[in-house]
Amino acid sequence: MVEKEMSLSPLHRLIKKAGPYRVSDSAADELRVVLEDLALRIAREAMDYCTHAKRRTVKREDVELAVKKLIF
Amino acid sequence: MVEKEMSLSPLHRLIKKAGPYRVSDSAADELRVVLEDLALRIAREAMDYCTHAKRRTVKREDVELAVKKLIF
Repeated sequence: MVEKEMSLSPLHRLIKKAGPYRVSDSAADELRVVLEDLALRIAREAMDYCTHAKRRTVKREDVELAVKKLIF
Repeated sequence: MVEKEMSLSPLHRLIKKAGPYRVSDSAADELRVVLEDLALRIAREAMDYCTHAKRRTVKREDVELAVKKLIF
């Protein structure tokens, strides 16, 4: 389980961009849980590629490769 | 293209949870772009299920079904 890092208001705004619906707090919270879990999975992959490139600083290219390999 | 909604500091913290690495701003920004895009895709799916259930308020169950159907 990931501790909460993201706040709900940007997620509310993101959901509302998708259409003219009302959004319950529990829906925004569920989206938060899913996105934080995905972020952690992407970050772990990115660190594998960072290590592979003999670096200790995660760069954009590590995240890009992680996302590509996880096929979102 | 999604306008920026998420701020970078929670994303920095999330990435750092994955391991003892330094994280470039561009890496956090790339993660932001990916997560906002996914959030919008999930939200659009959730609204389809919301409409299908004859509601105008997106609920947790709509987001859960959207995530399940998108198979993350």
